[in-house]
Amino acid sequence: MADRPHVVIIGSGFGGLFAARAFAGKHVDVTLISKTAQHLFQPLLYQVATGILSEGEIAPTTREVLRRQKNVQVHLGQVSRIDLESRTVHYAMLDKHMRMSYDYLIVSAGSSQSYFGNDQFARYAPGMKTIDDALEIRGRIFGAFERAELSADPKDVARLTTFVVVGAGPTGVEMAGQIAELAYRALPDEFHNFDTRSSRVILLDAADQVLGTFGDRLSGKAQRALERLGIDVRLGQKVVDVDARSIVVEHSDGTRERIEAFMKVWAAGVQASPLGKQLGEQTGASVDKSGRVSVQQDLSLPGHPEVFVIGDMMSLDDLPGVSPVAIQGGRHAARLIAARVDDPGFTEPFQYFDKGSMATISRFSAVAQVRDFRTAGFIAWVLWLGVHLWYLIGFKHRLTTLLHWTVSFIGRGRAERAVTTQQVIARRAIEDHGPGYNPLIDSN
Amino acid sequence: MADRPHVVIIGSGFGGLFAARAFAGKHVDVTLISKTAQHLFQPLLYQVATGILSEGEIAPTTREVLRRQKNVQVHLGQVSRIDLESRTVHYAMLDKHMRMSYDYLIVSAGSSQSYFGNDQFARYAPGMKTIDDALEIRGRIFGAFERAELSADPKDVARLTTFVVVGAGPTGVEMAGQIAELAYRALPDEFHNFDTRSSRVILLDAADQVLGTFGDRLSGKAQRALERLGIDVRLGQKVVDVDARSIVVEHSDGTRERIEAFMKVWAAGVQASPLGKQLGEQTGASVDKSGRVSVQQDLSLPGHPEVFVIGDMMSLDDLPGVSPVAIQGGRHAARLIAARVDDPGFTEPFQYFDKGSMATISRFSAVAQVRDFRTAGFIAWVLWLGVHLWYLIGFKHRLTTLLHWTVSFIGRGRAERAVTTQQVIARRAIEDHGPGYNPLIDSN
Repeated sequence: MADRPHVVIIGSGFGGLFAARAFAGKHVDVTLISKTAQHLFQPLLYQVATGILSEGEIAPTTREVLRRQKNVQVHLGQVSRIDLESRTVHYAMLDKHMRMSYDYLIVSAGSSQSYFGNDQFARYAPGMKTIDDALEIRGRIFGAFERAELSADPKDVARLTTFVVVGAGPTGVEMAGQIAELAYRALPDEFHNFDTRSSRVILLDAADQVLGTFGDRLSGKAQRALERLGIDVRLGQKVVDVDARSIVVEHSDGTRERIEAFMKVWAAGVQASPLGKQLGEQTGASVDKSGRVSVQQDLSLPGHPEVFVIGDMMSLDDLPGVSPVAIQGGRHAARLIAARVDDPGFTEPFQYFDKGSMATISRFSAVAQVRDFRTAGFIAWVLWLGVHLWYLIGFKHRLTTLLHWTVSFIGRGRAERAVTTQQVIARRAIEDHGPGYNPLIDSN
Repeated sequence: MADRPHVVIIGSGFGGLFAARAFAGKHVDVTLISKTAQHLFQPLLYQVATGILSEGEIAPTTREVLRRQKNVQVHLGQVSRIDLESRTVHYAMLDKHMRMSYDYLIVSAGSSQSYFGNDQFARYAPGMKTIDDALEIRGRIFGAFERAELSADPKDVARLTTFVVVGAGPTGVEMAGQIAELAYRALPDEFHNFDTRSSRVILLDAADQVLGTFGDRLSGKAQRALERLGIDVRLGQKVVDVDARSIVVEHSDGTRERIEAFMKVWAAGVQASPLGKQLGEQTGASVDKSGRVSVQQDLSLPGHPEVFVIGDMMSLDDLPGVSPVAIQGGRHAARLIAARVDDPGFTEPFQYFDKGSMATISRFSAVAQVRDFRTAGFIAWVLWLGVHLWYLIGFKHRLTTLLHWTVSFIGRGRAERAVTTQQVIARRAIEDHGPGYNPLIDSN
């Protein structure tokens, strides 16, 4: 039998993790390199940001998830360079610089929040892509209410309790819905000097629909459900400036409006990992403006059948940047690589099976579409609940998550509201260093 | 009926929280001022530090706990000065400076870790007093294993996997026990390049017993149980230096030894809030070297029957700095104050009811003493479990905690292991600013 080929996977998101799992029992050795020690279940990040779940529940340690697979090693490190010619990946952790050669490479380094060229907005309107983002937003939301309680100035209170969510895709809709639940249902009892029910929750998008990908009917239903919750849904409005105290929008007629708001969240737009650009430069594969690399039908890089680019980093047939595309892409790449141990030239085109998509609006209310079947309301919410529990990694996380959901949806409590000093220190440091500062990996 | 007196409580620990609760339905108005938004259940902090519980489970938001008490307001702020003559408390949050007058004052600002004059140790050996401490230690423990996995140098691996706990009181014993559980039972499957079972866990104390307050018999049993777990228990050894890579101890014969260790925890010694010293200066009440104020038999400050000092800040009859003393002190002060609405001169001496004490060593093993009844092993552990669940605040936290305990004690998993970028940033900032830096409150 041939030597066991060495597969390097970059990233521990849905693509990377499900690729690694698909190698269970296969005759390959796998090294998964990731800049975080966790696998993040990103679809529930907004629940960490609003105090429903703990960060551990949606972010199990990758090596714990993979502990039974003796053929997988997990390395913590930031990949700085992929050298396709020598088949080597360069990565670093703190002051340790390492490289690793591969026979096969799966690049699934994902994407970060995009501010469309306005990176300075990040300081005032954190994104919704990492655990740090969620904890930062959690600290800002609960911190805003704490500060409002101490203020005697009604204008100050109004500014502190105006919450603006930019981007009306699933993440933005879910964030706005949960902030409204907090302000209008969970917190009113707790504050004596102002009424949290007077809070304003604004959901903004430059497009003219919420949840545009769900089609006109569900989009309209979702918008009405959000408005019934008390959310100010503003469509066709583009963000042109953000600072510590406010956000400025441009209406479709070109007029501008400044909204006084302490708390802003940015849930609009993503940018693929810069590794995509590197791969484009080394192969001539086209890279779109979001940084995604055009791949072959089998998800391999043009001219490099040993390299697969998957998930948010790949561009193929207009497939969206959602978790099922990454999961199925990871499994597909792993299957081809495993098959090539016995049949070196084996390949097959990737076929995406669309299982549908869903988004919650508030407790007991969601929208869901599975191909031509579309539904909104309670049934959709029950579907959402089941699917998300099913996909959460690990029995223990499913159990505690179900408990926390019971607390928050049947009751009105939020179990996870702790705000740490670390967060505040971190915010200041990021402000000094600029967004993207990653001291876990960067040693300076 | 007389005006409702205004009671100010400083601190949201056991003393402050239980005082506030004892005012439920009483004819007083209460303002609780605290520098954290949470009430911390400190006895389980080591479980957050070792990945068993989330920070939310042991640190519910104070205003949520008190939400049904309409006569209690909660203010987030750092108290800088108590003016006994004008009966005013000065406090600040960010750039907002506030003051509040009181008719009665309960000072329960607690204590912080003491390094016995060696504050520079804090950078390398974090304490075990706050959520930030626990998250910092969690990050260091799991980070040490991640770094060891990437190292090819056996000396480096040995240094990274040597864990030193300073202080063999309950917190130190529990930390050492849980680090041993992690290294020897929970993590071995997850690492491929080294064996976590080769880790060294060292428990150090200058005294010649572990758990000295539990008496010779239980102390001996606890020590043997720790040693059976694989822990190196070193007594009569005093820490004389700590740096990033090692810790230096002095043996009783005066010889010194350097132990190479990346990870150190400081669980020895406490220092009462500096507000104690202020109260001493204004009244002439004696303040001991740990910063505790001598109080009258009714817990009031000499010459100031309207001011009570409780919990870790008070010195009375050699009562220990444990949670039952703080809880009962808070209730006592509240009862006297409430009674004085109708009977202005009312007072009664504080009588401490000793319910006993307990400490866990590892899963299924603990020591407990209730007056003359002493027990060690499984029975003590079941007692420990029941008492701690009972005292946890909030039904939802009890349920998820029980689940997490099932996962960790019956299974071997650790549900809460997430390490954030914020922590790493924070560590660097604290190193720059020195220990005690609190940017949540300090605006500079």
